[in-house]
Amino acid sequence: MKFGGTSVATLDRIRRAAKRVGVEVAKGYDVIVIVSAMSGETNKLVGFVEETSPLFDAREYDAVVSSGENVTAGLMALTLQEMDVPARSWQGWQVPVRTSDAHASARIEEIPPENITAKFAEGMKVAVVAGFQGISPEGRITTLGRGGSDTTAVAFAAAFGAERCDIYTDVDGVYTTDPRICEKARKLDRIAFEEMLELASLGAKVLQTRSVELAMRYKVRLRVLSSFEEQSDEAGTLVCDEEDIMESNVVAGVAHSRDEAKMTLVSVADRPGIAAAIFSPLAEAGVNVDMIVQNISEDGRTDMTFSCPTNQVARAEKALAAARDEGVINFAEVLADTGVCKISVVGIGMRSHAGVAAKMFKVLADEGINIQVITTSEIKISVLVERKYMELAVQALHDAFELDKAG
Amino acid sequence: MKFGGTSVATLDRIRRAAKRVGVEVAKGYDVIVIVSAMSGETNKLVGFVEETSPLFDAREYDAVVSSGENVTAGLMALTLQEMDVPARSWQGWQVPVRTSDAHASARIEEIPPENITAKFAEGMKVAVVAGFQGISPEGRITTLGRGGSDTTAVAFAAAFGAERCDIYTDVDGVYTTDPRICEKARKLDRIAFEEMLELASLGAKVLQTRSVELAMRYKVRLRVLSSFEEQSDEAGTLVCDEEDIMESNVVAGVAHSRDEAKMTLVSVADRPGIAAAIFSPLAEAGVNVDMIVQNISEDGRTDMTFSCPTNQVARAEKALAAARDEGVINFAEVLADTGVCKISVVGIGMRSHAGVAAKMFKVLADEGINIQVITTSEIKISVLVERKYMELAVQALHDAFELDKAG
Repeated sequence: MKFGGTSVATLDRIRRAAKRVGVEVAKGYDVIVIVSAMSGETNKLVGFVEETSPLFDAREYDAVVSSGENVTAGLMALTLQEMDVPARSWQGWQVPVRTSDAHASARIEEIPPENITAKFAEGMKVAVVAGFQGISPEGRITTLGRGGSDTTAVAFAAAFGAERCDIYTDVDGVYTTDPRICEKARKLDRIAFEEMLELASLGAKVLQTRSVELAMRYKVRLRVLSSFEEQSDEAGTLVCDEEDIMESNVVAGVAHSRDEAKMTLVSVADRPGIAAAIFSPLAEAGVNVDMIVQNISEDGRTDMTFSCPTNQVARAEKALAAARDEGVINFAEVLADTGVCKISVVGIGMRSHAGVAAKMFKVLADEGINIQVITTSEIKISVLVERKYMELAVQALHDAFELDKAG
Repeated sequence: MKFGGTSVATLDRIRRAAKRVGVEVAKGYDVIVIVSAMSGETNKLVGFVEETSPLFDAREYDAVVSSGENVTAGLMALTLQEMDVPARSWQGWQVPVRTSDAHASARIEEIPPENITAKFAEGMKVAVVAGFQGISPEGRITTLGRGGSDTTAVAFAAAFGAERCDIYTDVDGVYTTDPRICEKARKLDRIAFEEMLELASLGAKVLQTRSVELAMRYKVRLRVLSSFEEQSDEAGTLVCDEEDIMESNVVAGVAHSRDEAKMTLVSVADRPGIAAAIFSPLAEAGVNVDMIVQNISEDGRTDMTFSCPTNQVARAEKALAAARDEGVINFAEVLADTGVCKISVVGIGMRSHAGVAAKMFKVLADEGINIQVITTSEIKISVLVERKYMELAVQALHDAFELDKAG
């Protein structure tokens, strides 16, 4: 059971979360609880670090920022003890959660279950573990990066062969689309790992992408549910294997992302190797290029369009200018358009159903929305459109694919 | 160098403290810096624990409460790095600071210097260590109790054979008495360990008692100085061996404590073993009895008076009532007087100068102050008087022993 920052934001909420844990203990389960920092704490600590040292040593960042989870873990253990549930807290290094030494974005490498298992054998019912943190080979504290507590939870579920991994958060499950944009959005009872992965990486901020990857790899049955509503075995959304979903819509959901920018290099030489020449410097500069489109060539020159996160535009421009100065590439100008957004439809049903892309394009055309860039994968179609059409596009697609009705 | 909570209360103050550290590094020293939590943090965390669980598991208390120091240690290391001083942080378990398993009031048992020494050999100049915490034989986090960072600092100074242990705090040294009560109070340049020990345990809250005990035992030259004033080699007060003090007053200082209560058992049987019968149950109940006076016996019965902290009166009354119910002791009634205070004069000069007690009693008598209880040790005389006379008694004694003049 994992409780996010809003689910443990106050002592009262910790008590409410502890009661949920108590219900599972009463059913006879041994429970591992993963906790985040009380909401706001991590931001406060990150603020301290950034103000102290703009180019901070990530090892010290980790030492500071990991402390919020330690507080919640201790408080959760105390709350459970008050309810007469035998519990104790573990910090990452005590388990130990062994990670890589990539400070501030470490990867979990191993979670030896012995220490916690021994305590379960002695009668302890709940192990409360500080999420988001681990220990490097050198013995220093690491953190997993933002949203890392989800990953901690899935990794523990895998390491201990847990029956289920329940992620308690401030929403009651995964929706067909963002309910704030489309009032017909419907909560999904089940969603396939692959679909969740696409939705997670597309900006549906319910679960961290890496936690879904891990869950898929280790076949962890992952449930997302609200810590603010009554609990039941059917609550929330189960993220599971494709074969555990009996019947489903062709399209599972419509996602949107508003922090995508479109960049165009005007008049680059159309020669073999030009894509590598453009995108290698961008990769080296840490620009996350998402979609790429190359226009039809005229007179040996072409335009190259790509998308990247809005806050990386300046970095991309700098890298491209440097590459031109070094003679690696040649172009007339760079156009940056930050007035776009990305709309995606996702569904494993696309594999066996043709015509989803065609239908999507027609729906948008009927609404007078011009598509600027397109990319597709096996279970996803994404388009860039003007940002002002975002709500309209999401609502129209949600209607057209009848996502308000269960499949 | 140890910096207390007020000295690291904000990022600006951490920067100021780091500059002091930089001065010592520039002189060629390797420095170990011990930090407390930012002021207010520990109280906040203790509040969380007490609200969660009034009879808390001290192991979880320690896990929660120790996190404040971890934050400051990381921030101090980052601040030093920003000043181009090679530094890194250590949490108690990383050093490791091995302690007993008496959670919330653990004793330091061993500090192996190898890990930190190895880093000094590699060119690191400052090891920043989170104070107040350690690790139990079982591998769980412990804390040393309130003021424990002073003890951490002295223990490190002893373990590393430090030239000096500088305790930076919000006062500029040790005074002949409390300057808020007596405006003639004078800062002492030097004070003997034994004197400091009496003053610390008498309520002069400059240093934690255990840190002074440790410093005395391991001959650590301890300096108390303000982090808010300009630094110099003569700043603050040096706590040192008696023989390092050339000339001194017979009396070094006058201390007071306002949270003492006087309790009297009226009409107890005066028989061998009666003191043990009374004070054993009190000790078992955790009552810290300080002064004890047994009145002259009449008709085989006597009154027994003792003092204890005001907040332990209820516990003492309960323990005494229980002992009477069990037939262990017999008395007519228990009188508790919380309107008293303790005044003490302290000085190693008393060993060789007779008449200090006589002078003290005369000074108080001349002011019309009635003495209720007296205790003495080799270098201290304490009396209980009505609390309303506290300021008057302190000022009169300070004048009479000419403490405003250097010895």
